[in-house]
Amino acid sequence: MIRFNCDYAEGAHPAVLEKLIATNLEQTPGYGTDDYCLAAANLIRELCSAPSADVHFLVGGTQTNMTVIAAALRPHQGVIAAASGHINCHETGAIEASGHKVLALPAENGKITAEQIDAHVCAHMADGDREHVVQPGMVYISNPTELGTLYSLAELEAISAACRRHGLPLFLDGARLGYGLAASDNTLSFADLARLCDVFYIGGTKQGALFGEAVVITNAALKRDFRYLIKQRGAMLAKGRLLGLQFLALLEDGLYLRLAREADRLADRLRDAFEACGYPLVGKNSTNQVFVSMPDTVLDRLRTDYSFEMWGRADDTTSTVRFCTSWATREENVEALIADIRKVSGHV
Amino acid sequence: MIRFNCDYAEGAHPAVLEKLIATNLEQTPGYGTDDYCLAAANLIRELCSAPSADVHFLVGGTQTNMTVIAAALRPHQGVIAAASGHINCHETGAIEASGHKVLALPAENGKITAEQIDAHVCAHMADGDREHVVQPGMVYISNPTELGTLYSLAELEAISAACRRHGLPLFLDGARLGYGLAASDNTLSFADLARLCDVFYIGGTKQGALFGEAVVITNAALKRDFRYLIKQRGAMLAKGRLLGLQFLALLEDGLYLRLAREADRLADRLRDAFEACGYPLVGKNSTNQVFVSMPDTVLDRLRTDYSFEMWGRADDTTSTVRFCTSWATREENVEALIADIRKVSGHV
Amino acid sequence: MIRFNCDYAEGAHPAVLEKLIATNLEQTPGYGTDDYCLAAANLIRELCSAPSADVHFLVGGTQTNMTVIAAALRPHQGVIAAASGHINCHETGAIEASGHKVLALPAENGKITAEQIDAHVCAHMADGDREHVVQPGMVYISNPTELGTLYSLAELEAISAACRRHGLPLFLDGARLGYGLAASDNTLSFADLARLCDVFYIGGTKQGALFGEAVVITNAALKRDFRYLIKQRGAMLAKGRLLGLQFLALLEDGLYLRLAREADRLADRLRDAFEACGYPLVGKNSTNQVFVSMPDTVLDRLRTDYSFEMWGRADDTTSTVRFCTSWATREENVEALIADIRKVSGHV
Amino acid sequence: MIRFNCDYAEGAHPAVLEKLIATNLEQTPGYGTDDYCLAAANLIRELCSAPSADVHFLVGGTQTNMTVIAAALRPHQGVIAAASGHINCHETGAIEASGHKVLALPAENGKITAEQIDAHVCAHMADGDREHVVQPGMVYISNPTELGTLYSLAELEAISAACRRHGLPLFLDGARLGYGLAASDNTLSFADLARLCDVFYIGGTKQGALFGEAVVITNAALKRDFRYLIKQRGAMLAKGRLLGLQFLALLEDGLYLRLAREADRLADRLRDAFEACGYPLVGKNSTNQVFVSMPDTVLDRLRTDYSFEMWGRADDTTSTVRFCTSWATREENVEALIADIRKVSGHV
Repeated sequence: MIRFNCDYAEGAHPAVLEKLIATNLEQTPGYGTDDYCLAAANLIRELCSAPSADVHFLVGGTQTNMTVIAAALRPHQGVIAAASGHINCHETGAIEASGHKVLALPAENGKITAEQIDAHVCAHMADGDREHVVQPGMVYISNPTELGTLYSLAELEAISAACRRHGLPLFLDGARLGYGLAASDNTLSFADLARLCDVFYIGGTKQGALFGEAVVITNAALKRDFRYLIKQRGAMLAKGRLLGLQFLALLEDGLYLRLAREADRLADRLRDAFEACGYPLVGKNSTNQVFVSMPDTVLDRLRTDYSFEMWGRADDTTSTVRFCTSWATREENVEALIADIRKVSGHV
Repeated sequence: MIRFNCDYAEGAHPAVLEKLIATNLEQTPGYGTDDYCLAAANLIRELCSAPSADVHFLVGGTQTNMTVIAAALRPHQGVIAAASGHINCHETGAIEASGHKVLALPAENGKITAEQIDAHVCAHMADGDREHVVQPGMVYISNPTELGTLYSLAELEAISAACRRHGLPLFLDGARLGYGLAASDNTLSFADLARLCDVFYIGGTKQGALFGEAVVITNAALKRDFRYLIKQRGAMLAKGRLLGLQFLALLEDGLYLRLAREADRLADRLRDAFEACGYPLVGKNSTNQVFVSMPDTVLDRLRTDYSFEMWGRADDTTSTVRFCTSWATREENVEALIADIRKVSGHV
Repeated sequence: MIRFNCDYAEGAHPAVLEKLIATNLEQTPGYGTDDYCLAAANLIRELCSAPSADVHFLVGGTQTNMTVIAAALRPHQGVIAAASGHINCHETGAIEASGHKVLALPAENGKITAEQIDAHVCAHMADGDREHVVQPGMVYISNPTELGTLYSLAELEAISAACRRHGLPLFLDGARLGYGLAASDNTLSFADLARLCDVFYIGGTKQGALFGEAVVITNAALKRDFRYLIKQRGAMLAKGRLLGLQFLALLEDGLYLRLAREADRLADRLRDAFEACGYPLVGKNSTNQVFVSMPDTVLDRLRTDYSFEMWGRADDTTSTVRFCTSWATREENVEALIADIRKVSGHV
Repeated sequence: MIRFNCDYAEGAHPAVLEKLIATNLEQTPGYGTDDYCLAAANLIRELCSAPSADVHFLVGGTQTNMTVIAAALRPHQGVIAAASGHINCHETGAIEASGHKVLALPAENGKITAEQIDAHVCAHMADGDREHVVQPGMVYISNPTELGTLYSLAELEAISAACRRHGLPLFLDGARLGYGLAASDNTLSFADLARLCDVFYIGGTKQGALFGEAVVITNAALKRDFRYLIKQRGAMLAKGRLLGLQFLALLEDGLYLRLAREADRLADRLRDAFEACGYPLVGKNSTNQVFVSMPDTVLDRLRTDYSFEMWGRADDTTSTVRFCTSWATREENVEALIADIRKVSGHV
């Protein structure tokens, strides 16, 4: 069984693991106050051209989303997000459990627009009974989105401007950030994110680390007491250095984006193969997630050797599924899959 | 200025006020443990043919909704509701502030169906990753709905059956219950509600009381410790007898439904007048809320003498608005409004 | 049975009720935006010499406490209070249900001191691991306290100074405020409260109203969006004018303090009688709550004609109990009680 | 600098790390559904003689505490704990942020008794106004406690019996469980814990793992939907196998208790040395945490070469400090410390 169902099926990139091994019996202070975390934070500030940013390391994505959002909102405020956003769909209501409504906007290919944000906020402010309605207090976007699509620089600039016009912090979920920044049609840089967002994170879990997300906060109001929030949400790792070490390994010589670029290239090979065999891509993108519609009969034959994720029914005989590549995907496995797709679809 | 914008513009029906005056200097125990609350609860049990129901008196609707829902759900559960439901739209996120997601289903004229509930729950249970998604834990409906429409007995029976099949308590928001039960095309009784719902409430605030909602709980699991929840949510009135007294005045001789029937009749007069003048009713119903689309020019002329509520834009020159009648609406005011509608629309 | 167990056994002072009756069928806008609320707020601002204060009317004390505290704190913050404070003991965890720890300080006769607050905050800030501990974010005191005692002007000035030194809003629970301000040894005025607190409330429920607490906010940061919080916590009364009207009746000609002064005087009569009969007062105070230790045999005889509240066991044969007077207490009932106390204790 | 300030200063025991290395590039399903987690859970069930227990793996202690407690309590319930309990002191209010009050009982050497629990619950149930007070809904104890002390089998049996008498689930925090079970005066076994508690956890973070806590649930009511709760609280590790693998390494050949026994032995050496030099142990225990009172002048000299944790002031010139040993403590470092203690105290 070869797994393409997700991008967290393996452990860590060997370079990451080596760093953990090499430092294993060193003694350091706990809770992210060690020198490795300090060095990793400095590296990230540099990478982002954001010398005054605060950098914190958390363990996972849901945890990071709920901690950042709880830190930013007052009780009567909600967070604007795409209806398909991770916080709205796949976190078992972690945001609501923190007391806040997700203000879901209809999304196209996982993305929302500056115009939608503007319209939502203006409608709220124009409502004479607005005190009876959840106040928009923050905007959450993902890049790449949950559908693998990307925001362009122009789109992000427009969203950022809308947010600042309305006094809303902009939070970018970068659980798969590398796969986005390394994509062939990407127009964003780390520095753009730091400049345009108030807070964002650089995903480690899906990009070569055992686990870990690096939160970058540029908005001074959000920096205040953030470590209290991390602790309260159960997100402060006792051996915090494990996080600093992993991000050092991934970021200090560009490994992070190199791994992502390779995963995106392998996803491109899959995309080409699917299209060549006549299977339509869904929300075509350039990152590591490939969404494609295929007949159920074909999927049944592939299922014996490959795992992939069911995404939904296209029609009575066809489903949309997701294939992921990752930093750990082997080219030979991609080639095997392509060969089998060709075979089962009669395109040999 | 004559107000038709809502059904809580006046104080209380004189019979209610008289009962408060007559008992004003009596001494009673607090917090709803007095004899008046006891008598009112007995009366309600009788009215509902539900001798073992628990009855509690709370002050307002939002408070009641959040208390009942918090009492019923575990942390990972959400409440299914119409997207247009009060808890989803007009309670400033009170349910989310209690930790729970509102699982909003698209609604037609304010109503959801047994099929929708069934489909939502089945899809959840069939999801291999359902632990990443909020679990449906309760169903909330309003009758009349926020758009004044009604569930039929057959519809409510189907919803109740779906809920029981899936182990979901059914909660019916009856903030305007009387206007529903008294409507010309109503098919429900108090006893039906007690039989088909697990918990519902009989609205007082909008139906002749100064304030007050009577919660009827028939499901044993929901009864447990409910008074702790009332207190914790700030919903336990010190002078609880004020609630018992008001419900006694409203219910002991059928005043409640008589007042509602009269309000519905006056709303019918408005409906007839609007249609006669060519203004289309929106989601035509038979209760005390009248939704109608009218040209903005006409609304501007009415606005000088009447208040009504803006509901939305129909098109560039037309708006949908709400006119409410209530237990306190005077026939002469309805006639004045009808005359003015005819005048401004040239239908004299 | 004559009730001395609490100060909310009756309805409202006749002047309050008359105002409700006189305005009963007037139509007003809802949710506290009517002219009566406006007028009552203006009156309170004047009374407090606080022309820029925000004034809001809520229904009850627990509701008010949880709304104010939720509005003021960030998620990692707690509220400092006396261990005997109402929010720590008698609100079924309403504050914790809002997400916040009550940081309980040992209290003497219901009071905490500026020194205690100072010491707690300094210890927190000096803790190298303070991020693992709830951060003090607000101070809550009651005046009169739950034991009927009073803060002096000097004490309140010291507490206020400590709070401001540490950036902590000071919140004063005035559920029985009138009984305090009218007490023989009171040194505080409404204006002092507005000057020294960031937010406080003037209790109505226990002082002549059917219900109602008037929140006065002087701190600009706490004013922001407060009405959203009121609505979210289920504390926004639809017929909000009922609150404005009641406070107008109580405050516009000094009735509020006159009623309180009379209740305090009657409590003084009880205190004198208890002491004369050799029953020691517990935490002797000058307000409307009388705490006294009496033999259980005596209490058993009083219990047939009078209700009072058990407060605790003093020793194997003696209990501490509470007798309350209120705006509604009749002098003849106090005299009857005194006569009976004398009789059962052999002091005729 | 040699660290004795905590038991999480190093990475993982080599056997743990090796298992992670050996499986690093294997592909497994995520979120704890892999075969390693399955195997580790089976091993734990066997170890606990609890074939029907549910076993879940979480990342850290605060996270585990808040997830278990949120899963067990209804909104109006609180958790009984020692005032010195971790959930009451060092989790930044994580329990309150979940909506629940910690009902803190005075503790002696970190421990509470069956009698205290009994008395608290009986007092609550006897309170006529108990609905105004947080209802005890669960009991939390730590073993070893935060002060390193242990519950005896008799004590735990008594606590368990009290809990069952009152219908309260008993939750045992075993963040340092191994150091307890391996202690010279321990009387408990894994099987005792499974039999007497409703839920407990086996700590990994402080006992040889990089991170990880294994939750064992024997009470059927607590098992229900627990994975939803894990996900919602941000505690579901994507690469869940990392947890299963670590517990396999620690538990499959008894390494866990061997490491703990050695750490306890080294702590004993420190205890002996402190006492020999005349420094009194505080709350003397037999586990890996050593609490001792020493003159500040002595501590100042030790501080240059050793880290330890300040615990409190004993008097003007003396402090209480904590020295920890762990699975990673090297005997030569203990000997160096002992030598230096002797030297600075003149006991060479």
